[in-house]
Amino acid sequence: MTGTRKAVTLSDVAQLAGVSLSIASKALRGGGRMTPATRQRVVDAAATLKFRPNTLAQSFAQGRSLVIGVVVEHSSDLFTMPVVMGVTSTLGNLDLAVLVYDASEGPERRTDVVAKLRARMVDGILVVGDGTKHPVPSITGEVDVPVVYAFCESESARDTSFMPDGFGAGRMVAEHLIGLGRRKIAHITSGNDTSAASRSAGLVAGLADAGLSLALTSPLVGDWSQAWGMTAAREILRRREDVDAVFCGNDQLAVGAQRVFRSEGVRVPEDIAIVGYDNLNRLVESAPLITTVDPELYRLGGTAARYLVESGAEREPGVQHLPCTLIPGWSTQPDGARPAASFADDAP
Amino acid sequence: MTGTRKAVTLSDVAQLAGVSLSIASKALRGGGRMTPATRQRVVDAAATLKFRPNTLAQSFAQGRSLVIGVVVEHSSDLFTMPVVMGVTSTLGNLDLAVLVYDASEGPERRTDVVAKLRARMVDGILVVGDGTKHPVPSITGEVDVPVVYAFCESESARDTSFMPDGFGAGRMVAEHLIGLGRRKIAHITSGNDTSAASRSAGLVAGLADAGLSLALTSPLVGDWSQAWGMTAAREILRRREDVDAVFCGNDQLAVGAQRVFRSEGVRVPEDIAIVGYDNLNRLVESAPLITTVDPELYRLGGTAARYLVESGAEREPGVQHLPCTLIPGWSTQPDGARPAASFADDAP
Repeated sequence: MTGTRKAVTLSDVAQLAGVSLSIASKALRGGGRMTPATRQRVVDAAATLKFRPNTLAQSFAQGRSLVIGVVVEHSSDLFTMPVVMGVTSTLGNLDLAVLVYDASEGPERRTDVVAKLRARMVDGILVVGDGTKHPVPSITGEVDVPVVYAFCESESARDTSFMPDGFGAGRMVAEHLIGLGRRKIAHITSGNDTSAASRSAGLVAGLADAGLSLALTSPLVGDWSQAWGMTAAREILRRREDVDAVFCGNDQLAVGAQRVFRSEGVRVPEDIAIVGYDNLNRLVESAPLITTVDPELYRLGGTAARYLVESGAEREPGVQHLPCTLIPGWSTQPDGARPAASFADDAP
Repeated sequence: MTGTRKAVTLSDVAQLAGVSLSIASKALRGGGRMTPATRQRVVDAAATLKFRPNTLAQSFAQGRSLVIGVVVEHSSDLFTMPVVMGVTSTLGNLDLAVLVYDASEGPERRTDVVAKLRARMVDGILVVGDGTKHPVPSITGEVDVPVVYAFCESESARDTSFMPDGFGAGRMVAEHLIGLGRRKIAHITSGNDTSAASRSAGLVAGLADAGLSLALTSPLVGDWSQAWGMTAAREILRRREDVDAVFCGNDQLAVGAQRVFRSEGVRVPEDIAIVGYDNLNRLVESAPLITTVDPELYRLGGTAARYLVESGAEREPGVQHLPCTLIPGWSTQPDGARPAASFADDAP
C-alpha cells in the first residue's frame, strides 16, 4: 500500500464542522435534531473534504455485497465481450462490482462457481452465453439471489433470458428490401447456428406479410465464410431467376456475395441489393459499408444487468427478445452514399 | 430474493459433524486441540455440505473489499474491450471483483470516480486507456492503494504502465521479412496515432540491424483506411523502385494494398510480401489471412491485473512493454498455405 492520502472519515468531517461524531452522522443521514445552520455546516464540511460514507460497511451491514456474479464460457469471444462489457459498465455506473468467472480461464466447474458466488454473497448473478439457442443449465434454484440469463436461453422456462430478436431482425430486413421495391429476395445462411434459424424465419414471415415467398424456394445453406458467400452468389446467378436482393446471415457471406456480383457485372444495389448481419465489417472496413443489422450486444448486456438489479423478485419468466438495429449501407441505397470508386470497384 | 437453498453455514457443518461451533471453526482453520478423527469428521461434513467460509466477512474483517476498481474511457471501444475483459476474467479467477467506472457511460468526472473508489475501499485500481501514447493523468497520489495503468502511459514516471511493445513489433516484422530474403521494405502507416510511431521506429531499427534502410526513404503516411492502403500501394508501384515487401501499420491498410497489388498483376507474396497489424481481420475474414501482428490486448489486461495484485508496494516504475505476436499468413509465405483460389483471386 503506497500513496499519500488516507480516506476521509466521518471524524474528519465532524472535526471540521465543530460537531460531535453523532451529530455529524445524523446531519448527513438527514435525521436528528439540530439547527439548519448546524446541518449545513456538516454538509459543507463533507463537501470540502470530499467525504463519502463507507458504502462497503453500510452495505455489508445490510447483508449486501454490492457485487454481482457473472458466469461466462469464453470472455474473450468476439460476441461475448460486448455483452459482458455492457453488463460491467452498466453495473459500474450503479456502483455495483462484478465478479466474473470465466470457465475458459480456469478449471472451475459450474458447481464450484456457484459455490464461490454464494460464499461471496453476491447480490445477483448474470449467466452470459454465446448467443446460440442451445439452452444453458439453470442455476437459479441453487442460489437465493436473482439470476438473469443474457445472450443465452436458460433451460428452465421459469427463468428470465435476454436474446437479440433474430426473428424481428429477419422481418426488418424483409421490410427494408420490400420497401425498396425488391420482390425476389434470396437468402444465404449457415446451417450450424441455431440462432440463425430465427433470422431466416423472420425473413420468411416478413415476405409472407407482403404476399411473397423466398426466391429460389429455400435458403442457400453452407458455413459462415466469405468463400460460401461467393459460391452461393454464383449459384444465384446460375439459376437465372431474376433475384433482386439477398439477405446474408452474416457479414462475411455478404462481402463474399458482393464480390461475385460485382465481378460478374451485376450492379449492387441496382440489380441486386445485399444485407448482412452482425455489423462486424465496421471493425475492419472503411465507410461506406454494406447494409447490415447490429444485434446490439453491448446494449443487451446493459439491459439484462439493469433488469437483474431493478426487477427484484418480480422477474418475468421466458425469453425477452431485444430489438436489433438496421444499419443502412451502400448495398441497399441506390441514391445514397456510395463507396469511393477505388473501393467499390474492388479493383479491378 | 427467490430461490430455494440457503447458504451453508458453519453451524450446519458443526451440526452434521456433531461438534460445537468452536471446534468446527478450529478444525477447518487447522488449529485447536482435537483428535484427528474429529478434525476429519468436520472436514468431511464441510465437503458433504459444500461449505465455503464466508470470504466476504473474512476479507472485510481484514480491511479488504476483494474489489479492484477499473477506470476506463470507453468500455465499448474495440481495442479497449479485450483489455478490460482480460483484466476482469483474470481477477475473477483470483476471486476478485471489478468495479468498472466508464466515463462514457455516466457524467462522472475523474475526481468523482476516485472518490467513489476510495469510499468503496477497493484493494487496487487499474486505469485502462485507449492505447495511444498520450499520457493519462496519474491518480496514484490520490489513493492509498496500488494503481497500475494498462494500455496507456501514466503522466507520472513513478507509476507502472503496461503497453504493447510496438517498437518490438516493428523490429519483429523487419526480422520476419529480412528472414524471407526481402531487402526493399516499404512502410505504409497513419500520421494520427502516436503509438504507431513506435512500430515505425522498430521497423527502421530492425532494418538498420541488417544494414538496410526503409525503401522509398520514408513511410507513406495517410489515415487508417483501406482506401489509403490502395492509394499508397499505387504510389509504391508508380515509383518503380523494386519494393519487395510492405509493412502496413494496420490490417485495413494491408487489405487495401493487397487488392491493388493483385489487381495490377503483382504477385503476393512472391513479388511483394505484406504484413499488417492488429490481427483484426480474423474477425471478419476467412482463413488463410494476411500476415499480421497481434498486440495481445486480452493478455495485456490480464498481465496488468496480476501485476497489480501480486506486486504489493514493490511496483517497478515506468512503462513495461509486453511482447506482441507475429501471426504468419499467406501474404508472406510463398510455400505455405494459400487462400482458396476463389478467395485469393479476389474475383474476377
